[in-house]
Amino acid sequence: MSYFKNVGNIQYEGPSSSNPLSFKHYNPDEVIGGKTMEETLRFAVAYWHTFTADGSDPFGVGTMQRPWDHLSGMYQANARVEAAFEFFEKLNVPYFCFHDVDIAPEGRTLAETYKNLDEIVARIKEYMKTSKTKLLWNTANNFTNPRWLHGAATAPNADVFAYAAAKVKKGLEIGKELGAENYVFWGGREGYETLLNTDMKLELDNLGRFFHMAVDYAKEIGFTGQFLIEPKPKEPTKHQYDFDVATGLAFLQKYDLADHFKFNIEANHATLAGHTFEHELRTARINGMLGSVDANQGDMLLGWDTDEFPTDLYSTTLAMYEILLNDGLASGGLNFDAKVRRGSFEPEDLFHAHIAGMDAFAVGLKVANRLLEDHVLEDFIADRYESYTSGIGLDIVQGKTDFHKLEQHALSLGDIKNKSGRQERLKAIVNQYLLEAQVASVR
Amino acid sequence: MSYFKNVGNIQYEGPSSSNPLSFKHYNPDEVIGGKTMEETLRFAVAYWHTFTADGSDPFGVGTMQRPWDHLSGMYQANARVEAAFEFFEKLNVPYFCFHDVDIAPEGRTLAETYKNLDEIVARIKEYMKTSKTKLLWNTANNFTNPRWLHGAATAPNADVFAYAAAKVKKGLEIGKELGAENYVFWGGREGYETLLNTDMKLELDNLGRFFHMAVDYAKEIGFTGQFLIEPKPKEPTKHQYDFDVATGLAFLQKYDLADHFKFNIEANHATLAGHTFEHELRTARINGMLGSVDANQGDMLLGWDTDEFPTDLYSTTLAMYEILLNDGLASGGLNFDAKVRRGSFEPEDLFHAHIAGMDAFAVGLKVANRLLEDHVLEDFIADRYESYTSGIGLDIVQGKTDFHKLEQHALSLGDIKNKSGRQERLKAIVNQYLLEAQVASVR
Amino acid sequence: MSYFKNVGNIQYEGPSSSNPLSFKHYNPDEVIGGKTMEETLRFAVAYWHTFTADGSDPFGVGTMQRPWDHLSGMYQANARVEAAFEFFEKLNVPYFCFHDVDIAPEGRTLAETYKNLDEIVARIKEYMKTSKTKLLWNTANNFTNPRWLHGAATAPNADVFAYAAAKVKKGLEIGKELGAENYVFWGGREGYETLLNTDMKLELDNLGRFFHMAVDYAKEIGFTGQFLIEPKPKEPTKHQYDFDVATGLAFLQKYDLADHFKFNIEANHATLAGHTFEHELRTARINGMLGSVDANQGDMLLGWDTDEFPTDLYSTTLAMYEILLNDGLASGGLNFDAKVRRGSFEPEDLFHAHIAGMDAFAVGLKVANRLLEDHVLEDFIADRYESYTSGIGLDIVQGKTDFHKLEQHALSLGDIKNKSGRQERLKAIVNQYLLEAQVASVR
Amino acid sequence: MSYFKNVGNIQYEGPSSSNPLSFKHYNPDEVIGGKTMEETLRFAVAYWHTFTADGSDPFGVGTMQRPWDHLSGMYQANARVEAAFEFFEKLNVPYFCFHDVDIAPEGRTLAETYKNLDEIVARIKEYMKTSKTKLLWNTANNFTNPRWLHGAATAPNADVFAYAAAKVKKGLEIGKELGAENYVFWGGREGYETLLNTDMKLELDNLGRFFHMAVDYAKEIGFTGQFLIEPKPKEPTKHQYDFDVATGLAFLQKYDLADHFKFNIEANHATLAGHTFEHELRTARINGMLGSVDANQGDMLLGWDTDEFPTDLYSTTLAMYEILLNDGLASGGLNFDAKVRRGSFEPEDLFHAHIAGMDAFAVGLKVANRLLEDHVLEDFIADRYESYTSGIGLDIVQGKTDFHKLEQHALSLGDIKNKSGRQERLKAIVNQYLLEAQVASVR
Repeated sequence: MSYFKNVGNIQYEGPSSSNPLSFKHYNPDEVIGGKTMEETLRFAVAYWHTFTADGSDPFGVGTMQRPWDHLSGMYQANARVEAAFEFFEKLNVPYFCFHDVDIAPEGRTLAETYKNLDEIVARIKEYMKTSKTKLLWNTANNFTNPRWLHGAATAPNADVFAYAAAKVKKGLEIGKELGAENYVFWGGREGYETLLNTDMKLELDNLGRFFHMAVDYAKEIGFTGQFLIEPKPKEPTKHQYDFDVATGLAFLQKYDLADHFKFNIEANHATLAGHTFEHELRTARINGMLGSVDANQGDMLLGWDTDEFPTDLYSTTLAMYEILLNDGLASGGLNFDAKVRRGSFEPEDLFHAHIAGMDAFAVGLKVANRLLEDHVLEDFIADRYESYTSGIGLDIVQGKTDFHKLEQHALSLGDIKNKSGRQERLKAIVNQYLLEAQVASVR
Repeated sequence: MSYFKNVGNIQYEGPSSSNPLSFKHYNPDEVIGGKTMEETLRFAVAYWHTFTADGSDPFGVGTMQRPWDHLSGMYQANARVEAAFEFFEKLNVPYFCFHDVDIAPEGRTLAETYKNLDEIVARIKEYMKTSKTKLLWNTANNFTNPRWLHGAATAPNADVFAYAAAKVKKGLEIGKELGAENYVFWGGREGYETLLNTDMKLELDNLGRFFHMAVDYAKEIGFTGQFLIEPKPKEPTKHQYDFDVATGLAFLQKYDLADHFKFNIEANHATLAGHTFEHELRTARINGMLGSVDANQGDMLLGWDTDEFPTDLYSTTLAMYEILLNDGLASGGLNFDAKVRRGSFEPEDLFHAHIAGMDAFAVGLKVANRLLEDHVLEDFIADRYESYTSGIGLDIVQGKTDFHKLEQHALSLGDIKNKSGRQERLKAIVNQYLLEAQVASVR
Repeated sequence: MSYFKNVGNIQYEGPSSSNPLSFKHYNPDEVIGGKTMEETLRFAVAYWHTFTADGSDPFGVGTMQRPWDHLSGMYQANARVEAAFEFFEKLNVPYFCFHDVDIAPEGRTLAETYKNLDEIVARIKEYMKTSKTKLLWNTANNFTNPRWLHGAATAPNADVFAYAAAKVKKGLEIGKELGAENYVFWGGREGYETLLNTDMKLELDNLGRFFHMAVDYAKEIGFTGQFLIEPKPKEPTKHQYDFDVATGLAFLQKYDLADHFKFNIEANHATLAGHTFEHELRTARINGMLGSVDANQGDMLLGWDTDEFPTDLYSTTLAMYEILLNDGLASGGLNFDAKVRRGSFEPEDLFHAHIAGMDAFAVGLKVANRLLEDHVLEDFIADRYESYTSGIGLDIVQGKTDFHKLEQHALSLGDIKNKSGRQERLKAIVNQYLLEAQVASVR
Repeated sequence: MSYFKNVGNIQYEGPSSSNPLSFKHYNPDEVIGGKTMEETLRFAVAYWHTFTADGSDPFGVGTMQRPWDHLSGMYQANARVEAAFEFFEKLNVPYFCFHDVDIAPEGRTLAETYKNLDEIVARIKEYMKTSKTKLLWNTANNFTNPRWLHGAATAPNADVFAYAAAKVKKGLEIGKELGAENYVFWGGREGYETLLNTDMKLELDNLGRFFHMAVDYAKEIGFTGQFLIEPKPKEPTKHQYDFDVATGLAFLQKYDLADHFKFNIEANHATLAGHTFEHELRTARINGMLGSVDANQGDMLLGWDTDEFPTDLYSTTLAMYEILLNDGLASGGLNFDAKVRRGSFEPEDLFHAHIAGMDAFAVGLKVANRLLEDHVLEDFIADRYESYTSGIGLDIVQGKTDFHKLEQHALSLGDIKNKSGRQERLKAIVNQYLLEAQVASVR
């Protein structure tokens, strides 16, 4: 059967197309900077938002109209798999991602949960044989069930820690089974509500122990996907331990885990932490830890994770700029951890939303690529830091100086000449490149 | 003499121009939607940021390199007038705006301040005879001097209230003398630091009295410019009484002043109040009180008034959409209440910044105009609210119903059919119109 | 049967008590400033948080252990009534509040919903005959059901508007039946998600029409409770029309509704709007519109409505200060619109939380009352604004001056003398009064 | 001469005192938890806010009335030293702190700046011979002068880097000369305004090089004070590299500097970074890096560094709780990096403000100490994490388990039993301890 029978395969029809259900910028086969768009962008559909979520929010119940609504339990889980692969095909996306509970309902016992998972994983594996769509990453949802109310790997209850370990163990096995290219850790409840009742040191030590055991088990079973930590500062917790990339980096270094992890960076999590998306990407990149991206956007005036589909072209451009400078995402990808608004409840909106997001990143890729090909920012930066390529500047960079020599140099200086940072001009240039994206296409 | 001798007049050269000191989108004579760009956009240069400010911030002294730096007092004030009119001409802007203290230094006494102002106002008037650039609005700076530390019209000290009145009186006289099309009230210190020491009711009552006296005096001297209140939520005060448009509207209605005032809406003030720029414009517009605009932008991750030059094309597009729906700004305009960054300290940056801002609003105008010409959003909205054009919906709008009839209608309903709000699709459409702005230009 | 059998009636045992399930500050019969605590504080329990909510959040399902968990439908609704009145008695609270859907499940049709409500309302009425606990206010939940996804009285769909009217009509009837002292309007979905699809003017006009019909219907049936608007800036909507008190006031004045409404002010909503709790209370008070209070607190570092039980003694003190200056809350009260944390899931936590909140407001009352009895702030303020009691200041206040006279006065002034606002000293005084609250009790 | 002649020495007079210029809680000689208050609290006066700052803000010039206002240059610098030591004595504080430019004006050349510094340092040293007040820390102001507009150790200009090194070199020499117990690095300009023009990796590498050279030079000259990094997320920069403690820790580990630095934690910087003050203290403490404290408070509704004097007793209590658990601050102290409000411009306000802050921390110390003596939180926490002291929990903590064993354990579990986190009860307990602080004193 077809779950989206009114929707055909989504094709690239170009900017001049008036068909709302077509790509106007994303052309998977178009080569940009030496790779096809599909190879660079590595889009993934998020199973939870698109096939599992119902549009509920803290003040309202579900609104989503989904063709599998009338089913429940494993029947519904099986229907979702069918729907998902139909959706992947129509959108022609190369990847998808899931949490364990997205694909199969939890059972009354852990054993039953395993059984449910095994059945659906087998089903997915079957579909993957004939589908082009691969598993970018999977993960364990250790935050929804009441048992996780005080944390999972950082719970004050050792039984909960053990249960979390069992679920991640199973997740790694599923990842191996389905060929996942990464495994993600998002610690939705790994943090605290109040320091008044929290042994923060023990909780962090336990988190370090947990990650080491996960690394060991992956090695044991030969799971070679990249491990990824997904930072988020807060929500649902008051404070989440993986606050942002820098906090994650501090943790990984302290617990001697930095060689085993990279970061999965989400735009909306970045802004909730007080950073731009591109800041988090840059921070990860220059530390060699830019692993994957949760492609969405937040509302800068709202203080919670709105997980909107990404449409801001400034944001997609600056993100793709970092990603291109990173030489791409390697095993990572751009996963749409994004949900249609509660008021966009028709199945058709799922397509509109993904098209909006994929086109936005396609434009971002084009603009970023042209900026790089023209060395626009690189030339400006080279000139700006030119003093570090000779004389005292080169000595500094090469570690050949000390406070004595630097003081002598400073005492010898007359007025110091600085140069304008030209921020307004650079922003105008980015605007111009953005506006020309389309021109390049129509020519 | 020339203050900007290395800079020629800024011309429209179109998007293909590689000259950084040219307009790529703003062409004053180009007709968009029946008016020239110049007529619709009514750009103004802000005297304070461009000719008076020095780039200092709370942690650093001034950095700006200005050709009138070496002068002081009235010599400097006169030089600034010369420089200003040279700048206006090179940019070819139709308007400028100032606070009293921007153009002439305060004297040791109020009388001396008046004298300084008279001299410079005469000088400006002389320049205006041969310049195309007119005065969009002027205002009194009743916030910088220590005397205003607890407020001006809302000060706990009646002498301060009187002093504020004198300065506004003089401001209205200057406005009349120079043909100002508006007069602005921004109450930088009209608010409180702590409620513990504040008689909020007396302060607001006094503010009402002050505005009534200003209205009376303008009438007396025949000053016909539009009175404008500029909302801002906080900074420098903990709480400023004109928090946002809605708060200003509550105040104006309560004190029977709504017929005499409109709003001067600043983008950065909107976001500091927790609103989008377009929300504040919309709120003013549907209340018939959209008067003028302080065209800038804030940094959504910073909690203070950054007053950046506007370059975000989403923001300029949505602002121009409201302005076009308002049938333009009447006597108002787009005043660049924006400052170059402290690190953009060279005179050339003043040109880059204004070009960036003017081009951004020119693009916004083009995109908004095309959206309106194509009835893109209007058609969607007409369809969305269609139920109010007949039946029970029309009865509601025409006031022909009551809770009894509505209950009867509700009881008769089966399942209620709502329609998707299509937010993601609408955002993609706005993106497409934005990307096509340039195409329209190059074709 | 008893739902809270391990908990006896909560008594005042004084600060020296080591019994965690006792009041240490709230003594209902103690007279403070001429009234008993019970008369001044008028505490109410919120039915939704305490008897209906389950502790779910956007990332997790319910956690609450409640003795009526095993029931469903009308059986559960009836059990909740029993539990509620047991809880009210144990806490000895004079009031409670509810939304329609808190007390009875929605039916498949509106008529069935009415029937469910009628049954439970009758049951509640029966309980109220022998209980001291009265209904502070009720309201219609027009935000949870999917039908409200685009709004209720501001929906783009006239059927939805009619349905909302029917529910408020029923709510007013229930209010009359149960002797509610107020009726509250909180427009959880009355706002917009994006201006791109919104006719804001029509929506606000419709909201005005809706309120007028509600006023008319209350008059018709002789419901004399006070109408209250509860401002909130956002969540669940991107922008809610009743953003804050000032915005509500602008709306009520514009639509000629100001005589019929007061405000129900919530602490957490105040801070989400960028204001202190006491600012909102003050704004309402000096406009004669302080009606009632939703007593809770937010987390200032989190951007959503955390609805925590109020424990911050600064906040309760400054709130009670405004309430005492308002001569109390008249028909309003202090309703605990507050929920135990998701991790505080045991029934006992409901008692701990209410005791914490009631004691916090009792301390606030004591401290505020002593501040007022000692004229601490009043004397400071009288001195600070003393210049408005004679001379030019008195002329200003009495409307006997104009810009000419004020200018003459200003020109005659030498240096203006301002006085320190003494913010630091005033804060230290408040601390001292707070610390002495207990001393007064133990003496 | 006396600069504060109307003010006598500030004495402890106890909570019952009605003298505003006395301590009501801070009694330097009172023993709390085995040490005198003076030994534990180690208060320091910040030279810049108290003797150098003038009350200017971005919208207004200075307002402060200071007895050394009429002087300038080195005369003023000398007068400030006299005034400072008079102030220290009257307040009886054990420490002070300064930036180089606070104590002596910058000269036209670096050599002249050195000369000015040498003169004032000699003067200070003379005063210190007879004063009890010691130097807690000094630092170099590398952010006010225009030369630092793009950074100091992270400037794109090697000359600026050298100049910064020279100033820190001098600062270390001064620190040694005056017996400073710490040396602080606050990188006000070490960050970026826009990534468009920034080589973030080079800048951070250079910062690492700079710190290594500072460590080497301190060793060379035998300066043994503790090196401290003071995190702040933003302001004046868009993004500051030392965003918070975790970010600083990531940097220090990466550049192999963690053994040489601790953190100087400021309350207002914590909240600007999205954290509570106590979170930052806790994070530093459990990493063994809690060095010193900048004792102030921010306004949670304002987005900039308000640097208010600390009066919030919750904040001082939770801060002292962390400090006591840290066994005190070792060579660090509580430095009042706090300024009187612009409207608190009289010299007397300096005393009111410091008294308010010192009393607030004295109360915090008393309350925290009683909480610890009674093991209130410790016992709750011990019980909460009890499962990690035996069985599978102990195995986890001791590293004796793996995913296999944990899965076996999880599979064997029935329903997992969690316990309430009791947040509301714990907050009520903290309130009760706070309210009893005074009782303990008056008894």
